[in-house]
Amino acid sequence: MIGIILFGHGKMGREITGIIETSTKMEIAEEGKNYEKMVVIDFSHPIRHDEAVSFAEKSGLPLICGTTGLSGEQFERMRELAKQVPLLYSSNFSYGISVIKKLLRESAELLKGWDTEMVETHHNQKKDMPSGTAKTLTKVLEDVQGAGAVNVHSLRGGTVAGVHQVQFFGADEIIEIKHTAISRRIFAEGACMTVEKIIKFEPGFYSFDEIVTESKDIVN
Amino acid sequence: MIGIILFGHGKMGREITGIIETSTKMEIAEEGKNYEKMVVIDFSHPIRHDEAVSFAEKSGLPLICGTTGLSGEQFERMRELAKQVPLLYSSNFSYGISVIKKLLRESAELLKGWDTEMVETHHNQKKDMPSGTAKTLTKVLEDVQGAGAVNVHSLRGGTVAGVHQVQFFGADEIIEIKHTAISRRIFAEGACMTVEKIIKFEPGFYSFDEIVTESKDIVN
Amino acid sequence: MIGIILFGHGKMGREITGIIETSTKMEIAEEGKNYEKMVVIDFSHPIRHDEAVSFAEKSGLPLICGTTGLSGEQFERMRELAKQVPLLYSSNFSYGISVIKKLLRESAELLKGWDTEMVETHHNQKKDMPSGTAKTLTKVLEDVQGAGAVNVHSLRGGTVAGVHQVQFFGADEIIEIKHTAISRRIFAEGACMTVEKIIKFEPGFYSFDEIVTESKDIVN
Amino acid sequence: MIGIILFGHGKMGREITGIIETSTKMEIAEEGKNYEKMVVIDFSHPIRHDEAVSFAEKSGLPLICGTTGLSGEQFERMRELAKQVPLLYSSNFSYGISVIKKLLRESAELLKGWDTEMVETHHNQKKDMPSGTAKTLTKVLEDVQGAGAVNVHSLRGGTVAGVHQVQFFGADEIIEIKHTAISRRIFAEGACMTVEKIIKFEPGFYSFDEIVTESKDIVN
Repeated sequence: MIGIILFGHGKMGREITGIIETSTKMEIAEEGKNYEKMVVIDFSHPIRHDEAVSFAEKSGLPLICGTTGLSGEQFERMRELAKQVPLLYSSNFSYGISVIKKLLRESAELLKGWDTEMVETHHNQKKDMPSGTAKTLTKVLEDVQGAGAVNVHSLRGGTVAGVHQVQFFGADEIIEIKHTAISRRIFAEGACMTVEKIIKFEPGFYSFDEIVTESKDIVN
Repeated sequence: MIGIILFGHGKMGREITGIIETSTKMEIAEEGKNYEKMVVIDFSHPIRHDEAVSFAEKSGLPLICGTTGLSGEQFERMRELAKQVPLLYSSNFSYGISVIKKLLRESAELLKGWDTEMVETHHNQKKDMPSGTAKTLTKVLEDVQGAGAVNVHSLRGGTVAGVHQVQFFGADEIIEIKHTAISRRIFAEGACMTVEKIIKFEPGFYSFDEIVTESKDIVN
Repeated sequence: MIGIILFGHGKMGREITGIIETSTKMEIAEEGKNYEKMVVIDFSHPIRHDEAVSFAEKSGLPLICGTTGLSGEQFERMRELAKQVPLLYSSNFSYGISVIKKLLRESAELLKGWDTEMVETHHNQKKDMPSGTAKTLTKVLEDVQGAGAVNVHSLRGGTVAGVHQVQFFGADEIIEIKHTAISRRIFAEGACMTVEKIIKFEPGFYSFDEIVTESKDIVN
Repeated sequence: MIGIILFGHGKMGREITGIIETSTKMEIAEEGKNYEKMVVIDFSHPIRHDEAVSFAEKSGLPLICGTTGLSGEQFERMRELAKQVPLLYSSNFSYGISVIKKLLRESAELLKGWDTEMVETHHNQKKDMPSGTAKTLTKVLEDVQGAGAVNVHSLRGGTVAGVHQVQFFGADEIIEIKHTAISRRIFAEGACMTVEKIIKFEPGFYSFDEIVTESKDIVN
């Protein structure tokens, strides 16, 4: 059983708590109880973030951090901490999107010269267009196929949590890669998934993608 | 067996000939042979079109015409002819698109207040954007939901013959209606399909939609 | 403001309460307060159902009932009640599925002779296969196209709330009609949507489909 | 300009001829003309196949062979020939399917524990079910995820050339990988694509997948 010290009780904090409560491998750490392994998770605010970092510093425990809006100074302090403990920072904890990135990088290599189009769909309250994830995926594709290789089309409707679809068009054939997020819960799932991985890592500053989809290369 | 007098031997004319050759219900009319029923089909050029009209006039046979680029005068002459024979004119003989129009009209009525998005995909050589069909479908939707109700996204890639997809987004549910044209052959199929219908019609000027999807209402 | 008397506080009851709380047109009826219009909603159990019916009987208020597992006797009593008040009974309150039924009925008529395939996708805990909705939609299609006209394919995976997709295949063209339920909330939305409609109805026993998608025909 | 000696003038042979005729890099070899590079392509019948092999033997030219129904003896003879010339044999020359195989292998690794479902769609005249490609893709997935990990659903309708769609279902997210063949022309395209590659290869017996999607690993 892995003991979790959780900072942050907002939307994401509550989702993470919910997942931990039904897990057979981890629990919210109880005071006074001994755990073989412990991990600090921080999904709080820039203001409370320093407290989480201090806790990881003193205890020497791994830190998983998804707090956004941090200052340059705060990132510097995390990089310093990463010399002593394994530290994972990411602004996107969706495992599926991480997989999609890998698949798109590979597809873009194999499908050079094919026409590429992206369609992303989100609820009608979303303000940014295209979505942050669409921008990231476009960058992945254009790093291989060159700037301007991808057109992004943004659909806004209803309560859609997030759909990203890339189509590659060749002569008389089409390859499509699509990710559908049914709810925001996947980001909490993604964070919890890294707990079991990070406890096996050497100190260092890791991204979510490195840990979940390319861990083999890193560990060796 | 229905005898067909075909004007036009271009791309569409050849497709129509191909379909008729494998049909058990119609054949290209042979000279001297007697047919119970005959139909004139004109998929030619504005220059040859008058010849087809004259033929229908003299013979009193039904005329199916898909020639584009006709003058106002030529349309007038067809309207005159339509007082004597059943005459079908259309610039789009796709049966599926005709069905889609009906479904969209109905959906737009039933799904007022839902967000509506259209995605149309065509080969990368297509110059107009959005496609003519996308414009027609948008008109169908906006006649019900109001101007500006639909966003159209145009994807261009590979050799795609034509895909039109409409999504209606409600609270936690999505309804999608999609038409895929695999080849241009469907337009020739659509024209041939009207042959058996038009021979039962009273003289008049008909549209493709009227004949194939709403014929009941018209005949009664 | 319409006052709602709600019987049932299970999963559906709570969803309905949630929707009413954010509505500007209805509220859970407060004792002693006067409402111009009131409606009884029953999403309870067969045991508590009789209480809801009695309440509607005495008060003469319209009744919307989605309680399942009722006995033949209980249905008889509702039919009796429907002579005095407008009464809506349904085991499926999804508006989108109701629309899909109409679209499929029409498509099946227009696409006779096309090959028809249905794919339904639900979460991996769902036990029945195909889904109840898939069976209903199959019936709609086969009523028009004949028994055995539709193959149903059941996909089970993850946490999918419910996807029903029907494809009609013609010569070189495909028409697809698809419904995606993102969450179970749509059933509660559907129930609340009928409130404003039922208060305008004459006494009678109505189905959800009649009220939401074909109300015009009924009222006239 | 690469000179092509083509054996086989059936459906595939004609498609290949059509592609070569519009190519700027290769042409059907004219007698007496000198070419820097030449390649033998064999899409014929088991009876004529030996002639193609003899030609490659005598001339020392690379051989691309897609003839099916060969005997064990004929394969042995090709393996012998591959010691002297680069020889490519495959029963499936679709580049897109080759890419899909790579993407599925990688996805299956990254998405262990997710539910996997495959849907394949082909025209209503296709007799085998599931398709040969669906079987190959299932093998790719089950090599990683274990026997029985994938359910295959076969849809048959209209004139569809071939669609293969794999969905991976996780907790609240879905990843989909899909290949659409618009026509059989892609197989001829795939064969022609290998021409420019095989002329740079060392003698050896190669598969289509090796040459088109993993050539780097092989050449180095």
